[in-house]
Amino acid sequence: MKAVQKLEHGVGYLGCVAVEEPKPTYGSVKIKIEFCGICGSDLHIVGGFETPTSPLPIPFTMGHEYSGTIAEIGEGVTQFKVGDRVTGIVTKGFCGKCRSCLMGDIGRCQDAINIGYECDGAMAEYICMPEGATFKLPDNVSLEEGALVEPAAVAAHAVLENVDIKPTDTVVVMGAGPIGLLVLQFIKACGAKTILADISSANARLELGKKLGADYTFENDKCNVIQEVRALTFGKGADFVFECTGVDIVITQSIMMTKRAGTIVELALTSAEGSNIKAYIVAVMQNMRIQFSYGHNLGTWQKTLQMMADGRINTKDLVTHKFKFEDFDEAFECNDANKIKVLLHP
Amino acid sequence: MKAVQKLEHGVGYLGCVAVEEPKPTYGSVKIKIEFCGICGSDLHIVGGFETPTSPLPIPFTMGHEYSGTIAEIGEGVTQFKVGDRVTGIVTKGFCGKCRSCLMGDIGRCQDAINIGYECDGAMAEYICMPEGATFKLPDNVSLEEGALVEPAAVAAHAVLENVDIKPTDTVVVMGAGPIGLLVLQFIKACGAKTILADISSANARLELGKKLGADYTFENDKCNVIQEVRALTFGKGADFVFECTGVDIVITQSIMMTKRAGTIVELALTSAEGSNIKAYIVAVMQNMRIQFSYGHNLGTWQKTLQMMADGRINTKDLVTHKFKFEDFDEAFECNDANKIKVLLHP
Amino acid sequence: MKAVQKLEHGVGYLGCVAVEEPKPTYGSVKIKIEFCGICGSDLHIVGGFETPTSPLPIPFTMGHEYSGTIAEIGEGVTQFKVGDRVTGIVTKGFCGKCRSCLMGDIGRCQDAINIGYECDGAMAEYICMPEGATFKLPDNVSLEEGALVEPAAVAAHAVLENVDIKPTDTVVVMGAGPIGLLVLQFIKACGAKTILADISSANARLELGKKLGADYTFENDKCNVIQEVRALTFGKGADFVFECTGVDIVITQSIMMTKRAGTIVELALTSAEGSNIKAYIVAVMQNMRIQFSYGHNLGTWQKTLQMMADGRINTKDLVTHKFKFEDFDEAFECNDANKIKVLLHP
Amino acid sequence: MKAVQKLEHGVGYLGCVAVEEPKPTYGSVKIKIEFCGICGSDLHIVGGFETPTSPLPIPFTMGHEYSGTIAEIGEGVTQFKVGDRVTGIVTKGFCGKCRSCLMGDIGRCQDAINIGYECDGAMAEYICMPEGATFKLPDNVSLEEGALVEPAAVAAHAVLENVDIKPTDTVVVMGAGPIGLLVLQFIKACGAKTILADISSANARLELGKKLGADYTFENDKCNVIQEVRALTFGKGADFVFECTGVDIVITQSIMMTKRAGTIVELALTSAEGSNIKAYIVAVMQNMRIQFSYGHNLGTWQKTLQMMADGRINTKDLVTHKFKFEDFDEAFECNDANKIKVLLHP
Repeated sequence: MKAVQKLEHGVGYLGCVAVEEPKPTYGSVKIKIEFCGICGSDLHIVGGFETPTSPLPIPFTMGHEYSGTIAEIGEGVTQFKVGDRVTGIVTKGFCGKCRSCLMGDIGRCQDAINIGYECDGAMAEYICMPEGATFKLPDNVSLEEGALVEPAAVAAHAVLENVDIKPTDTVVVMGAGPIGLLVLQFIKACGAKTILADISSANARLELGKKLGADYTFENDKCNVIQEVRALTFGKGADFVFECTGVDIVITQSIMMTKRAGTIVELALTSAEGSNIKAYIVAVMQNMRIQFSYGHNLGTWQKTLQMMADGRINTKDLVTHKFKFEDFDEAFECNDANKIKVLLHP
Repeated sequence: MKAVQKLEHGVGYLGCVAVEEPKPTYGSVKIKIEFCGICGSDLHIVGGFETPTSPLPIPFTMGHEYSGTIAEIGEGVTQFKVGDRVTGIVTKGFCGKCRSCLMGDIGRCQDAINIGYECDGAMAEYICMPEGATFKLPDNVSLEEGALVEPAAVAAHAVLENVDIKPTDTVVVMGAGPIGLLVLQFIKACGAKTILADISSANARLELGKKLGADYTFENDKCNVIQEVRALTFGKGADFVFECTGVDIVITQSIMMTKRAGTIVELALTSAEGSNIKAYIVAVMQNMRIQFSYGHNLGTWQKTLQMMADGRINTKDLVTHKFKFEDFDEAFECNDANKIKVLLHP
Repeated sequence: MKAVQKLEHGVGYLGCVAVEEPKPTYGSVKIKIEFCGICGSDLHIVGGFETPTSPLPIPFTMGHEYSGTIAEIGEGVTQFKVGDRVTGIVTKGFCGKCRSCLMGDIGRCQDAINIGYECDGAMAEYICMPEGATFKLPDNVSLEEGALVEPAAVAAHAVLENVDIKPTDTVVVMGAGPIGLLVLQFIKACGAKTILADISSANARLELGKKLGADYTFENDKCNVIQEVRALTFGKGADFVFECTGVDIVITQSIMMTKRAGTIVELALTSAEGSNIKAYIVAVMQNMRIQFSYGHNLGTWQKTLQMMADGRINTKDLVTHKFKFEDFDEAFECNDANKIKVLLHP
Repeated sequence: MKAVQKLEHGVGYLGCVAVEEPKPTYGSVKIKIEFCGICGSDLHIVGGFETPTSPLPIPFTMGHEYSGTIAEIGEGVTQFKVGDRVTGIVTKGFCGKCRSCLMGDIGRCQDAINIGYECDGAMAEYICMPEGATFKLPDNVSLEEGALVEPAAVAAHAVLENVDIKPTDTVVVMGAGPIGLLVLQFIKACGAKTILADISSANARLELGKKLGADYTFENDKCNVIQEVRALTFGKGADFVFECTGVDIVITQSIMMTKRAGTIVELALTSAEGSNIKAYIVAVMQNMRIQFSYGHNLGTWQKTLQMMADGRINTKDLVTHKFKFEDFDEAFECNDANKIKVLLHP
């Protein structure tokens, strides 16, 4: 079968190659991949990112944001049948009988590995995944939309599980990329007033943000966003700021626009060299909280699928480009001004 | 092997009979039982309690508060070896691959069953249990004490996981039975001021309560406990009341001695016919909370074992009687004034 | 000036009489009353309700749900001017310098008294109230709507301040009276799925509930609401049930339709004789929580007014009847099938 | 009367000068100062710290950590009499009738000012303070100890009000200054296991920490504290780290020793130039929380005094030096290796 693989360590070395089809083991399903998104972390990997403690399993198939249909059922599988439309979490290999697995933390199982990073991923015609990691797509969620459940779950974890947002709150989202636009929608679903900001070159994304429910949008390089947020909150500051850029100066902005005892939710990967946060002392003196949010869990996926089925989370409008596996080069290098999410498909 | 079984439906019909030894299946361990406690719910079962929707699997071995040593290892077991001293949770059969299991809720797995109630329990020479349900006893926790980890975990769940107790709080425990005396110790470990109350015929238990850390004890039939609690809190009322009796009038007392916006934790089985709570309207007008607490989870067991190992939870002094399996009659009917916890052993 | 007063102890004895106009003291404003709602507790008072520890200050002016315009400013008042449209909380007399007042709990000040119950209320042409207890009505909130801020704040306290509702939750409201219909709207504002139930004679209220956002409505005497809720939640049960009737059998229904570890919010006055709750033991065994909710605080009022100004809380449709003070008899005895909230006005 | 004043802007310019005695206004008490502590922020002020937006009211009396006896009662005061032993919060001027005051946030009253910084403080023979800001010392709390209620309340706010610590937690305190040693004691009162670290030159403080309940102490320049904490937590990391130094490298250490989804409480003033936090990305990927904690409120003072009265918080051993007002120079420059808290007295 075809697979988009990273073939060597270092920068680049992507290829669309022929590899052997996997076979479902006990308790696993074989999924025919329909779509697989390119995530920011995929770009890091192609850019050569690799840590000494977890070297890449070269060569390996990339990708972890996927949707597909069940092609084959392994022994012992009870919840799925051939043809079911599915998506799923990024973890496999977990044992299902250690304390971590039984306490709801399969990622901590010592046998757990992440697809597209520690083992073969979903930019291939087929992948085999454990039944417990696999989720049926609701009828009204298309396969294309299904490839965005993973990033939507990242946003859901940050908004619904790490903080409590009230309909009387004013909430700012800094950064209008795919995660920012999904975070925005979950906040909107909580009934809060939303403010979305990004730089002016991301104008197409800000426009989409408006369509998806942003009450106010600001171009961060063309106005003083801190002052705008203060003005919209009668000087008090935002109840929550979701920082989706990871950029030092935006982290400081986020602190400066948050109310006393308010919360900044940091859900971007910040610089690997460390963060230089000018306003840190302001966070101290204003008794704030910084809540970091990363990943998601099985419960997050259920909530995310429920809200996508209800039509409250729009992932469709985030898909701006689709490429065939063979055109991986074009896909990974896509740099259109209006680009939001790029999907690959067989 | 010997086993204490309920042989027929209805009141009584207990017997110590010879049954076949179980064999460990894949992922299970065979435990040689050393001690098994008699729980209040065991007395209910012997008293004929049974619901139409979950009839008792007559005949079956009773008991779910156990300790023992590993006698044999099933295939696939990695964490235990023969001779390990262990205790464990009451649930078995869970599949380890459905959504409930992988989300930390093995009790909701549709294959899960409870020992000593839905299948054979621990009042036998041997029991087989899943590796993931089994916990090693810390070195300084004896097998006798190990049989009380289960009720201690019930108390830990109520005190540590269902509420947040602060060292500035005043906390009342109503009822000085095994659960009340364990709840008391967990509250004491949180640094709070503790008040323990029971009727005067439970005087030996109140005395033990004092030894285990109760700052004040009251005989509920010889004084006005509500007034005493009000006096000790400058009229304000208790921050928390743990209701461990299930008796209607004590539930009303608990409400009457709780502060405005305070919390009553109900962890006794109340009457199956319903509860008649005179002071319910007071709970409304004082903006209180009733937090019910039942059972425990795998994380609770880890915390409980940690605190028993630290010597902060004393279960040893709760064991007042020990009987051989053959003397089950005497054990189940034991009615000494100083009785707290009765253990059976082979 | 005219005032609707309770003139004698016992059942009845209401009258519209001439009394002296009050004068604003230091820090108080004199408010010209425009509308004053009749609350359930007002009916209790007319029905003869009175406790030995707080006898009614006969004769006294009734009413505590009011709106009006500032008629005169007392010395030291800085936030209001004559003509301002206002409403306000029910507490006056608080000192502003004791520990309770300075800790945000003016109701606990030993000088605090409640209008319409412990002193003269708002069913009069004028009332004097402390500046700190008075709130300006937003421009787009009419004086008629302003008389419903108090019951709306009761609902806001229950929904926004006593629990955390998520957009993925399914929430039931039992009882479609004024409080139930306001609770419904605050829940809807949190993005949750809502189910409203009442008996079939309250059909007009259920219809209004649908208009105000109920996703499902049920006639409690014509179907099995517990089964309906279970069916709508795939057997799991509701995440939250708001019990707004105070009736024993409805409290038991509420428990029976709540999910494991779910929460019942009780915000009705239950029977003064006590509550007989058949399903209490189910609440124990399902690890539930009963959160009682009563009254509100100054922060609740700010949130309530914000959401009324935003158009998210509709109080207008709840006003079904208006009577002049002189027609108090008709107002208090109004029993129309479509009655929801009755207002009095000068 | 004598007062230690800052006489000019810039570095230094302290003096002990004669100033007029204050007179208590309505609702205020005149306090004869017995002791006044020197706080880290006092050293900043003497060092020339001043912001453009809140210039120092030169000349003014310094000090805000005080104890004393009531010397005179202003009109309207009801809770105090001459001779009462007291301490109190740093805020005065608040109106007691605005929304902020009545919502429990006197510091937000637009009339509120802080003593020793925005107006005359407590390094004087007398100070006048509002009744509502004044607290009686419990009988068994000496006047010397009473001068440390303010820093103890800072620690109480961080430990008891900003997080929930359980007796099963392992908690690290980074920095063994007065605040660190007080934080340590409040954590110990919650029943948690405590680890205290500072550099080896603070050895006398680490020794005192041991006496005050630290289970483990480490010299941060002589061992790898991160590894030590990991070893003591079986690799998991600390449940909470209280960062009491404000130093960038220690903030990074704090993150590196915290468990996944654990919490760092930051209660030191970090650098005014900003903080460079190398491990910030680790906090993201480990789903941590940074909870900042600053100051305290009236409720914190009640809890702090209760625990000092109970003998659970030892402030006495923190007082290492006492100087007369006239010897302010020596007091402010005191640099003994064993110095912890320095008090001034008339």
